[in-house]
Amino acid sequence: MTQTRTETDSFGPLEVPANKYWGAQTQRSILNFPIGWEKQPIAIVRALGVIKRACAEANIKAGKLDGIGDAMLEAAQEVVDGKLDDNFPLVVWQTGSGTQSNMNANEVIANRAIEILGGEIGSKTPVHPNDHCNMGQSSNDTFPTAMHIATAMTARDVTLPGLRKLHACLVEKVAEFDGIIKIGRTHTMDATPLTLAQEFGGYAHQVAKSIERIEYALGDIYELAQGGTAVGTGLNTPQGWGEEVAANMARITGLPFVTAPNKFEALAAHDAMVAMSGAMKTTAASLFKIANDIRLLGSGPRCGLGELMLPENEPGSSIMPGKVNPTQCEAMTQVCAHVIGNDAAVGFAGSQGHFELNVYKPMMAYNVLQSMQLVGDACVAFTDNCVAGIKADVVRIEKIMNESLMLVTALAPTIGYDNATTVAKTAHKNGTTLKQEAIALGFVDEETFDKVVRPEQMIGPK
Amino acid sequence: MTQTRTETDSFGPLEVPANKYWGAQTQRSILNFPIGWEKQPIAIVRALGVIKRACAEANIKAGKLDGIGDAMLEAAQEVVDGKLDDNFPLVVWQTGSGTQSNMNANEVIANRAIEILGGEIGSKTPVHPNDHCNMGQSSNDTFPTAMHIATAMTARDVTLPGLRKLHACLVEKVAEFDGIIKIGRTHTMDATPLTLAQEFGGYAHQVAKSIERIEYALGDIYELAQGGTAVGTGLNTPQGWGEEVAANMARITGLPFVTAPNKFEALAAHDAMVAMSGAMKTTAASLFKIANDIRLLGSGPRCGLGELMLPENEPGSSIMPGKVNPTQCEAMTQVCAHVIGNDAAVGFAGSQGHFELNVYKPMMAYNVLQSMQLVGDACVAFTDNCVAGIKADVVRIEKIMNESLMLVTALAPTIGYDNATTVAKTAHKNGTTLKQEAIALGFVDEETFDKVVRPEQMIGPK
Amino acid sequence: MTQTRTETDSFGPLEVPANKYWGAQTQRSILNFPIGWEKQPIAIVRALGVIKRACAEANIKAGKLDGIGDAMLEAAQEVVDGKLDDNFPLVVWQTGSGTQSNMNANEVIANRAIEILGGEIGSKTPVHPNDHCNMGQSSNDTFPTAMHIATAMTARDVTLPGLRKLHACLVEKVAEFDGIIKIGRTHTMDATPLTLAQEFGGYAHQVAKSIERIEYALGDIYELAQGGTAVGTGLNTPQGWGEEVAANMARITGLPFVTAPNKFEALAAHDAMVAMSGAMKTTAASLFKIANDIRLLGSGPRCGLGELMLPENEPGSSIMPGKVNPTQCEAMTQVCAHVIGNDAAVGFAGSQGHFELNVYKPMMAYNVLQSMQLVGDACVAFTDNCVAGIKADVVRIEKIMNESLMLVTALAPTIGYDNATTVAKTAHKNGTTLKQEAIALGFVDEETFDKVVRPEQMIGPK
Amino acid sequence: MTQTRTETDSFGPLEVPANKYWGAQTQRSILNFPIGWEKQPIAIVRALGVIKRACAEANIKAGKLDGIGDAMLEAAQEVVDGKLDDNFPLVVWQTGSGTQSNMNANEVIANRAIEILGGEIGSKTPVHPNDHCNMGQSSNDTFPTAMHIATAMTARDVTLPGLRKLHACLVEKVAEFDGIIKIGRTHTMDATPLTLAQEFGGYAHQVAKSIERIEYALGDIYELAQGGTAVGTGLNTPQGWGEEVAANMARITGLPFVTAPNKFEALAAHDAMVAMSGAMKTTAASLFKIANDIRLLGSGPRCGLGELMLPENEPGSSIMPGKVNPTQCEAMTQVCAHVIGNDAAVGFAGSQGHFELNVYKPMMAYNVLQSMQLVGDACVAFTDNCVAGIKADVVRIEKIMNESLMLVTALAPTIGYDNATTVAKTAHKNGTTLKQEAIALGFVDEETFDKVVRPEQMIGPK
Repeated sequence: MTQTRTETDSFGPLEVPANKYWGAQTQRSILNFPIGWEKQPIAIVRALGVIKRACAEANIKAGKLDGIGDAMLEAAQEVVDGKLDDNFPLVVWQTGSGTQSNMNANEVIANRAIEILGGEIGSKTPVHPNDHCNMGQSSNDTFPTAMHIATAMTARDVTLPGLRKLHACLVEKVAEFDGIIKIGRTHTMDATPLTLAQEFGGYAHQVAKSIERIEYALGDIYELAQGGTAVGTGLNTPQGWGEEVAANMARITGLPFVTAPNKFEALAAHDAMVAMSGAMKTTAASLFKIANDIRLLGSGPRCGLGELMLPENEPGSSIMPGKVNPTQCEAMTQVCAHVIGNDAAVGFAGSQGHFELNVYKPMMAYNVLQSMQLVGDACVAFTDNCVAGIKADVVRIEKIMNESLMLVTALAPTIGYDNATTVAKTAHKNGTTLKQEAIALGFVDEETFDKVVRPEQMIGPK
Repeated sequence: MTQTRTETDSFGPLEVPANKYWGAQTQRSILNFPIGWEKQPIAIVRALGVIKRACAEANIKAGKLDGIGDAMLEAAQEVVDGKLDDNFPLVVWQTGSGTQSNMNANEVIANRAIEILGGEIGSKTPVHPNDHCNMGQSSNDTFPTAMHIATAMTARDVTLPGLRKLHACLVEKVAEFDGIIKIGRTHTMDATPLTLAQEFGGYAHQVAKSIERIEYALGDIYELAQGGTAVGTGLNTPQGWGEEVAANMARITGLPFVTAPNKFEALAAHDAMVAMSGAMKTTAASLFKIANDIRLLGSGPRCGLGELMLPENEPGSSIMPGKVNPTQCEAMTQVCAHVIGNDAAVGFAGSQGHFELNVYKPMMAYNVLQSMQLVGDACVAFTDNCVAGIKADVVRIEKIMNESLMLVTALAPTIGYDNATTVAKTAHKNGTTLKQEAIALGFVDEETFDKVVRPEQMIGPK
Repeated sequence: MTQTRTETDSFGPLEVPANKYWGAQTQRSILNFPIGWEKQPIAIVRALGVIKRACAEANIKAGKLDGIGDAMLEAAQEVVDGKLDDNFPLVVWQTGSGTQSNMNANEVIANRAIEILGGEIGSKTPVHPNDHCNMGQSSNDTFPTAMHIATAMTARDVTLPGLRKLHACLVEKVAEFDGIIKIGRTHTMDATPLTLAQEFGGYAHQVAKSIERIEYALGDIYELAQGGTAVGTGLNTPQGWGEEVAANMARITGLPFVTAPNKFEALAAHDAMVAMSGAMKTTAASLFKIANDIRLLGSGPRCGLGELMLPENEPGSSIMPGKVNPTQCEAMTQVCAHVIGNDAAVGFAGSQGHFELNVYKPMMAYNVLQSMQLVGDACVAFTDNCVAGIKADVVRIEKIMNESLMLVTALAPTIGYDNATTVAKTAHKNGTTLKQEAIALGFVDEETFDKVVRPEQMIGPK
Repeated sequence: MTQTRTETDSFGPLEVPANKYWGAQTQRSILNFPIGWEKQPIAIVRALGVIKRACAEANIKAGKLDGIGDAMLEAAQEVVDGKLDDNFPLVVWQTGSGTQSNMNANEVIANRAIEILGGEIGSKTPVHPNDHCNMGQSSNDTFPTAMHIATAMTARDVTLPGLRKLHACLVEKVAEFDGIIKIGRTHTMDATPLTLAQEFGGYAHQVAKSIERIEYALGDIYELAQGGTAVGTGLNTPQGWGEEVAANMARITGLPFVTAPNKFEALAAHDAMVAMSGAMKTTAASLFKIANDIRLLGSGPRCGLGELMLPENEPGSSIMPGKVNPTQCEAMTQVCAHVIGNDAAVGFAGSQGHFELNVYKPMMAYNVLQSMQLVGDACVAFTDNCVAGIKADVVRIEKIMNESLMLVTALAPTIGYDNATTVAKTAHKNGTTLKQEAIALGFVDEETFDKVVRPEQMIGPK
């Protein structure tokens, strides 16, 4: 059996594991919410550390934490550094304000600071989880602040680096695939040609725009609720508190945080999170299209489109020997579909605030952070294990491009749309070439045909 | 200028078009809700006619509508028959209980009955829109009843016939495509063979199951809220009223309607509609897969998979002469994506009831009915203009199937998975056939190879 | 019977109504796609007029439309002006490229120009729908251009004016409600006070941010695909064509359109539309919260929260006399739930491009334009018929605020969180006041209590 | 450093941790897919154990696993019993067929069986992960079978018990709350009365229907893909294999599994999972409504509706002393919103099968299983920590009910709708009672009023 010690809150005493720093409110949450297996994202825990440190700094500066401030800073920094991760046992599915996770941070930092100061863990002396660790704060401003900090850090550390890596790789492919003229496909049907570089250039542009949209959405994320306290009024904070602690958080994280211009909105709504989720959804739609195209262009090896050769990373089948599959495309498209689902959850939850508080905070944070982590990670795996190694099958690409009937489009300005249609339809019916039929039908002579129907001149304006 | 007459309600007098039967409350709704262009679905209007007739019948039987009952029946029947469709001008985006559309029906029937009886339209004498047309009713039970009746009628008249037509056509294709052995594709990559009939048999099974799921969902739709009146208690109705009017509605429509076992649920929640929407979503997922497969299998004509030849229905491009596109697949997949969006709206709205009433009724009805109409219609167009005319390109199908490396799977039980892998990978690398490499590598002799690797024996258990 | 004339396309002759300008391809679409009742949005039709005019201008300038250019301009302008709206009969559920709607515009303009020039309608002489009206264009660049133009025009003319009107009204309410101190509510439970102005200030901020997000999303919408033609290469266009026609469209519409920097992306993906839909979804989440709050704050009149008095616009019940309901809130929240569903559809569709083309164009445009129209319209109705007339019930607001136990929060910095908890819990248990219990428990004297617990000092930082 | 041993697959050798049973393909997946933190659900792992045992039994019976069969059974049973859980390290975001998780099971069972038999782990002798552990199987039929088994087991063990517990508790509350007459609320506004038992009876009915819908959806889940092997044909299986192994799985799990009637559908689509997700979504919509109502009815304690008193489980605020919040309602509604998002992901993924395989299997399983686990768990916590302890505040309930103006509805049949409206509006305007105004206006005498307007007679049909 685990050894325990007694902790108390206003609901009474409770046994907690002796080797953990958390207190009664954390333990009570464990008992009251045995729901699912999804823990509060670790990014939220670290962000709470940032907040507690930033607020302690401000309170120290105001002369309010005599004798305990340094220990509190040290304890908070340990949370920031991930040294106390296993003291945060709570699940996502708790009170919708994240109060219990805020108290988890307060309790852990209080007890750890007490320990540093040589006091008795659980005694709330000389460091009290509410009076000191939560000084000038409420869960109602702390937790949304943690949501924004965690989101901004994940964007910086995971999502954007992943997307930028993919973008850089696609740009390299554009250079590599320059001059490879291939059949275009619209409606999945043969169309006029383009270069493989142009095709990948479209993908690169999509990723570049995704990065731009996420960066725009970060603008609102950088605005922090801290300072609103219970309902947005800032009750129990000194003048300038919001600005000061936001500046501290900016310094601690190296991110351009500022205090939110309207704290009532920042507690009661999470539109900035909904908007970020929307940016992730748009990104997912882009990445899905890219990965799906690549999988189809690489289909085969003998009965598919077969224009691309994707890297072979692992055996593809437990029953079909030698089979290799576009597994990175599959991981990516699964991630994208999942992100689109997450966005539906976030949009719904974002609409459900009541009065001064939206109480879907942990669930919204969980979904947004998961989307951001998955997209970032999937971009790295997809780039390293797929995109970087894609080769063009230039022989096949050229062969099928030259067979296409849609090269007839180049003839239309010369012989008219209706005649060109007749040429294409006749060649299709007879299984012949455009040239044969165009001449046989008397619309052009061979010389004109050869001059006009040149794929390399069909890949841009004249 | 349109001629008008004066109608009144408890908010005062109001001018309405002289050539319309509606009254003040309808007109007030037109003025108060100039939102969008989406009218109440006509199926809802007809269903309101059914309800008003069924209730009038019961009230006549109870001796309550002396001298006016027959005129009310006649007027209600005209609504059922679609003769008064243009007297229902209201949009979806009105009061969330559909009160104004219920009053629209009450006002139209009252005025039309007054007219039949030779009275003065707008006088509310001898037929009053509330006291007589709404007798024993509330919008709160009438509108959800209309939602269910409209849903059930649309299922019977549009959705299920469309799906059954598609199913029958797919079953015909299964017979037509029997014995055409083709490459299977998993992960979009070449896999072991199957028949085209088996592939279409999977589609047919999906559609059969869709029909089954919709029929199951109809079970709850057949339960009617009528009789709950204002909050579900049945206030101001006589004993047995719910049962009696449900029986009348069943007789009028020929559908197996019964009174809902719990009227509180029937007003405050619309889980039966959410469930029906879920069945439509599942159906949409099925149809999307089928239409998407057909489009890809028909891709080409020269640079795609090219196994199927889809009917050519119209010119495909305004710039590329002779282009033909899988446009029916596109209409179908657009419908499916839209239905999936509708389902998201319906699920959200279904969760938002407050206390005794869910006030997202018109919007939920609009989405569910739209999904059902679109799926039914799209199935008919897709069947008539695409599926029925699909031809298999048996020459190409056989050619690429025989080139596939995945026929090696048949060898695995004989030479082991690892050796079979070597055969496939070597043939892939060298661009040779499985047979060449299997023999060259010394794993089998020619005779064994020919006996074991036979596509026609790979399409079922041994 | 309607009189008809014969029109032809490459699939043969077809009878069309004699009194309409459309041709064979439009008619063929009517026959092939009898799906649903949702017509192409009129904003798309007008946008096609803009495009056809802009392209004709460029072609005239290049000396290509001798003798017919002016008539084409005149015909196109009639489309822009809405004079030919009833010549656009096609539904949304057609080919996914919108080809048939593009041809509808080409056919109508060709025939109308022929008529102006005194030719024979249907003769394609001297104006041909493809060779002249579609000169330098493809459906594949024209339709996405129409999507963007229609979106930008709807934003300017409907969505943003609606949101700005609501915003201005909320700002007025902030001024009107200044100094009205009320109970705050978090988790729907009594919390510390704030002013009604602060509460409405949160709403105003949400709407202001919605406007900002939509304006940001418009940035990408202003980039037009025109010039990409069939697959994005710009085949069959002269150098500089994209820039020139975008400039023409900018001039015609007064909107800052430019040519898209990457045409491949502009045809194959519609991320700009997905992003705009995401902005609308975020807006919907905001508006839902606002409307839902207002409905709950106005609940009653005797058994609800009763802080707000909403305007009474119509009778609320067909059975409960004198009932008045928050119907504008209901219309708004229904719209918002619907918009969230539309966004799910758009995100899905946006991910489904294949190769050089996304073929969910009409469906995406329909959903985005519907969302924008509904939000704009609903904002106007909600503002005019609800927000503008909201009154505060200051007597009730003050009464319940003063009863609240959460005023104890002001005491916590003085007597500590744990003691303050005891005060609140004891008062709750005994049904007494905070003051009574705080003094009885010996934590403060009366003077201190009165100095500290002052709602008017609890609505901001100290 | 962890000690390793060398394992091999067709891609070559790879170091794996020496203390784990997994082999090269599992390790390769770890390296290739460093995406997110979501592991394959443990229910999937256990289900793979069931499958491997069931197939080994059939292969032993057919005389195919001489000398190794018993060890394989023992190893598989250890997977079923959860003894080897930590040998399944793979994440959800891998190949979309779940091939790597199937191989994980094959590798672990092979190595564990080798160990039991005294062989060398990693030698593939005498037990080969493909040739023996995967005998008669493919990932393409095994993984969807695991999805269904895991879903059915989770439904039986978590989801349905949770819902049944909640249902039973609501039924108890119906009995407890019998005879408590309270104000009804429609549109959030005062309406005619009902009993609290009736209100909770609506909730109970919703939960009962949820159970029914999930049970219906289980019907299709009981149909197993096993026997389809690579593409649905059953290649490399003996006749009757599907039936035999399904029967084994039914015996092992005690659940009524049967072989799927159409294996092509079972591999290429996951409509049964989409339908189950839809049932969970409908359930979530129901539970959301219930939990949201309870939170609002319990709002206060002094400034809300205050009809219900919810159990106090923990301190509600880190800043507001004594605050207690409806946290269980918040956990439940967060779960519900999340489930609705999951459903969007599942529906999308379900539509995306290509040809013979849907490659969104792990992601679909993850979402469906998460929804089922969360709903089951949340129902238990919500029941135990909230519903069971709800008390009615009968004093307040009676007080506000008697003040309601909507009792006037009982008068309407006597004095007519229009007169009753006048009574209610006058009383509202004057702040008086209905009785005062009804008499003052001369519509009824006191005796009649007292006889007609009796709340206890307004809660059912006459």
